Amino acid sequence: MFEIRAKDGLGRIGRLEVNKKVVETPALMPVINPKKNVISPRELQENFKVQMIITNAFIIHESTLKEKALEKGIHGLLEFDGIIETDSGSFQLMTYGNINVTNREIITFQNDIGSDVSTFLDIPTLPEAPYEEAEKDLIKTLKRAEEAQTIKKGAMNGTVQGGNFLPLRKKACKALGTLDFEIHPIGAVVPFLLKYQFTPLVDIILTCKKFLPVERPVHLFGAGHPLLLAFAVLLGCDLFDSAAYVLYAQGNRYLTPFGTKNLEDLIMFPCECPVCTGSDPESVSHLPPEEKVQFLTNHNLYVTFGELRKIKQAIHEGSLWELVESRIRNHPNLLESYKIIKKYSPFLEKFEPFTKRTGFFYTGAESRYRPLCKRVRTRMASVRGERFHHPVFGEVPVSLSQTYPFHTDEVFSVTEADIIKGVAVYQFGPRAECLFEKVEITYGKTGKIRHVHENGVLLATLRPMDGLFVLTMEGAQKLHALLPFCDRRVITDEEAVPFVKEGKDLFAKFVVDLDVTLRPNEEVLLIDRNDVLLGVGKLLLSPEEAKSFKKGVAVQCRRGAHAVSDP
Amino acid sequence: MFEIRAKDGLGRIGRLEVNKKVVETPALMPVINPKKNVISPRELQENFKVQMIITNAFIIHESTLKEKALEKGIHGLLEFDGIIETDSGSFQLMTYGNINVTNREIITFQNDIGSDVSTFLDIPTLPEAPYEEAEKDLIKTLKRAEEAQTIKKGAMNGTVQGGNFLPLRKKACKALGTLDFEIHPIGAVVPFLLKYQFTPLVDIILTCKKFLPVERPVHLFGAGHPLLLAFAVLLGCDLFDSAAYVLYAQGNRYLTPFGTKNLEDLIMFPCECPVCTGSDPESVSHLPPEEKVQFLTNHNLYVTFGELRKIKQAIHEGSLWELVESRIRNHPNLLESYKIIKKYSPFLEKFEPFTKRTGFFYTGAESRYRPLCKRVRTRMASVRGERFHHPVFGEVPVSLSQTYPFHTDEVFSVTEADIIKGVAVYQFGPRAECLFEKVEITYGKTGKIRHVHENGVLLATLRPMDGLFVLTMEGAQKLHALLPFCDRRVITDEEAVPFVKEGKDLFAKFVVDLDVTLRPNEEVLLIDRNDVLLGVGKLLLSPEEAKSFKKGVAVQCRRGAHAVSDP
Repeated sequence: MFEIRAKDGLGRIGRLEVNKKVVETPALMPVINPKKNVISPRELQENFKVQMIITNAFIIHESTLKEKALEKGIHGLLEFDGIIETDSGSFQLMTYGNINVTNREIITFQNDIGSDVSTFLDIPTLPEAPYEEAEKDLIKTLKRAEEAQTIKKGAMNGTVQGGNFLPLRKKACKALGTLDFEIHPIGAVVPFLLKYQFTPLVDIILTCKKFLPVERPVHLFGAGHPLLLAFAVLLGCDLFDSAAYVLYAQGNRYLTPFGTKNLEDLIMFPCECPVCTGSDPESVSHLPPEEKVQFLTNHNLYVTFGELRKIKQAIHEGSLWELVESRIRNHPNLLESYKIIKKYSPFLEKFEPFTKRTGFFYTGAESRYRPLCKRVRTRMASVRGERFHHPVFGEVPVSLSQTYPFHTDEVFSVTEADIIKGVAVYQFGPRAECLFEKVEITYGKTGKIRHVHENGVLLATLRPMDGLFVLTMEGAQKLHALLPFCDRRVITDEEAVPFVKEGKDLFAKFVVDLDVTLRPNEEVLLIDRNDVLLGVGKLLLSPEEAKSFKKGVAVQCRRGAHAVSDP
Repeated sequence: MFEIRAKDGLGRIGRLEVNKKVVETPALMPVINPKKNVISPRELQENFKVQMIITNAFIIHESTLKEKALEKGIHGLLEFDGIIETDSGSFQLMTYGNINVTNREIITFQNDIGSDVSTFLDIPTLPEAPYEEAEKDLIKTLKRAEEAQTIKKGAMNGTVQGGNFLPLRKKACKALGTLDFEIHPIGAVVPFLLKYQFTPLVDIILTCKKFLPVERPVHLFGAGHPLLLAFAVLLGCDLFDSAAYVLYAQGNRYLTPFGTKNLEDLIMFPCECPVCTGSDPESVSHLPPEEKVQFLTNHNLYVTFGELRKIKQAIHEGSLWELVESRIRNHPNLLESYKIIKKYSPFLEKFEPFTKRTGFFYTGAESRYRPLCKRVRTRMASVRGERFHHPVFGEVPVSLSQTYPFHTDEVFSVTEADIIKGVAVYQFGPRAECLFEKVEITYGKTGKIRHVHENGVLLATLRPMDGLFVLTMEGAQKLHALLPFCDRRVITDEEAVPFVKEGKDLFAKFVVDLDVTLRPNEEVLLIDRNDVLLGVGKLLLSPEEAKSFKKGVAVQCRRGAHAVSDP
């Protein structure tokens, strides 16, 4: 039900389908109070293109709305035909310590009202709880998770608990991962958010990401402040929910990606959204209370959804790390928490694209934490020849001076033979040193190396965007012959073989296995189980994703084997 | 004609009055093509609250519009009743090398069409020009500037030239500063902007700021990209102009504070402005060419004016450095150019407020370049007692742990006597050590020190916001007695003495002299020429500004001497 459309860091633009309804992730679900709302679900859909909302089944269950919900269904009750996720009362459990409904009852109720994504009654543990309590809570949560398996109809949240203890979070992820859940919320994080305790939060998120099934979307339960969104997406969170837009509005608070402001502290609106553009803080402060809340609610939604669009655009162009490194400067604790990514660098590196649409931008000392930095040091070690000093990556072979991420305006004296050899080794490993031994080179309009031919046959094109090779089928055949089995290969399921041969994309569900050292956006060799070369293309996912996802394209195939025999 | 309303760094919210029309600075003047425009001046005024525009008198002079302009005046021609600034053809001179109009002719023409701010025919020098050429150009420019003095009517731009040579820029500033000009544009910077050469640009701006009369607004001629605005304002630029909003739109380019994007590279609009919110790049790319330009022009204006509002709000709350340090991450050359501020640190420090509405936020290693860092090291050296290690400021006296900019959540064991002594010394110097010797302390609701009394008389309040003292008249009297003449004093002109005694604010034009070691937002003693204490208040400007400005408040007076004798 979930597929990846674009990637950067652990962040992804995804497509989540529930009951034939689709939401593009990262998505923020506005929290709908079933009893009253400042902005109706219908307005959210029309004005803000909201495709998914969340409401609380427990509150409905305990209120006079219960009968109406059972009669009309949750979609009828809320007058919303998009995806509706329901919470189970866990939050109330955390707040009040006890509630009057069982796990079975609340799941059954969610089934009965036709929730698209329901939630079992997990036990949230407060951050300050001792280990024993957190463990006890988790054991109960996991029992309920198992119980839920027999009751659930349709998609369900498998919420991760474990308090402030990473081993418990890990245990929860492993246990829940073996069960049939469609989405994994990370639970009980609100107390961290309220106290701006981002360091333990980042630690928890990355632990969960490491141990949850890679193909299931992750929901950062209770998070939706635009200050944190970009970073949380980079860490692999796909879904968010937020009541902040309206709760903050009711407290005269104004959301921005650089923090929360009080209306009375503003002399002008630091925002270009439709409501802010036509007004000013002085005028808004004199509005009747209801109109003021309406105004701030609208602003809070515009700025939040605007930030989500900025994030998606950044994923698309490969500049999500840069966006995050700009955002983390907006709170000292956020900047501090960024250090945690160093600890998870080997894990993060597996998901990090090999090349991107936009160049590597250094935004300060923090940029060195990016997993890319470590990777390129290893990769370029195999490339021989003279070095130049790169301010971020150290001693870089001059043959790579026009290649992502080293690109520099400095000009070096380097032979063309060295460039094509250097790039080939960087891209395909030391064995590719002789890939382009006796070749003819042609040049682009700017005088740079463009095509590499051998005996009149085109083997590869050096892409101007990133200075990396794109192989033809003939180039792929040469590489295939040079590299040992497994290396650079993606093994295609029988069923997909004829399609790949035609040059059609390879879907993740037909990936039998692949070289686990590959990275997203790398050039790959598509083979059958007998190592017969079927095609060449670009891997879009990390190896683990390519093996685990059931939906979406894993390899964008550029040329199929049939193309060779074409006249 | 210019006054300062709020300050941070060299940045300021100002009020510029020309011909009884007012513009709030920092302001961006949209460049109006007199022959045709995508958005009319009237629409700019109505939809974007534009108070000042710029157009080119030379183009009008050379076109069929000349007669109409002479007949109806420039305001009639453009149908705009705000402030109209006119350029003289210098840009065309730079582009084409030669134009067919004299300095005298074009100034007279600007007089005749009723330009609010005219420009003499200065000679822009390209950055690559050698010193001799830049010097020759400058000598000619300065001659024309002198010639302009006898022809000008109303406000005129005294444009600073000198190419890429700081000594020539300095010479230009000193010469133009002695002449009668109302605004100083910094000229010939567009070539730097086009090549993203921010380091020489920052060097030029700061050199000009250092040697231009402090009371005249500075216009960064040809700059208006939202990427650069925050930094340019921090460096003391008040006015900007931009044709980018429409020229970029015509090239399918989309402005953002994090750089320029091509429409075709966008999958969604990373923006919440009124036009972007309701649309998507795919739809816009299919619009008829004129509508597409209209769309992009509107977006470019919304985002530019939104950025200006963010900047003004940041000045108001004292977070302009933080905003700039977030923005500079968006281009490597911008980040690099930030280092130049170290070179000008002693100059910048004089303008830097002593305290701010919001705390000091560390945004990365670059934060250490702020002039504040050096200042506080000097100031806190006089404070005795135990130290704690502050991550930015080093060894800080524990008595200052609740004071701006050292504020920390850590708790130290320190006596109240030490706190009030430490803060007094930090704020008023070593002689103030005995200011609060035998005092009684009362506490606020949070248990922190609030009031300091002596024999039942309130001397000072420790402001919770920044942990600094606010003096009563009695406290000021004690301080006045302790400190030698000049120290902490602002000398008031006779004319203003009775008003200050009543507790009225002191206007800049009545500042005779003041202690030049004072900084904006410091507590000051208002005295007459005989060192009789008249009042106590907060200095709003830097010493040089307080002495040079002719308009606006220099000291916000809190208590006047008369208040003491009040029953």
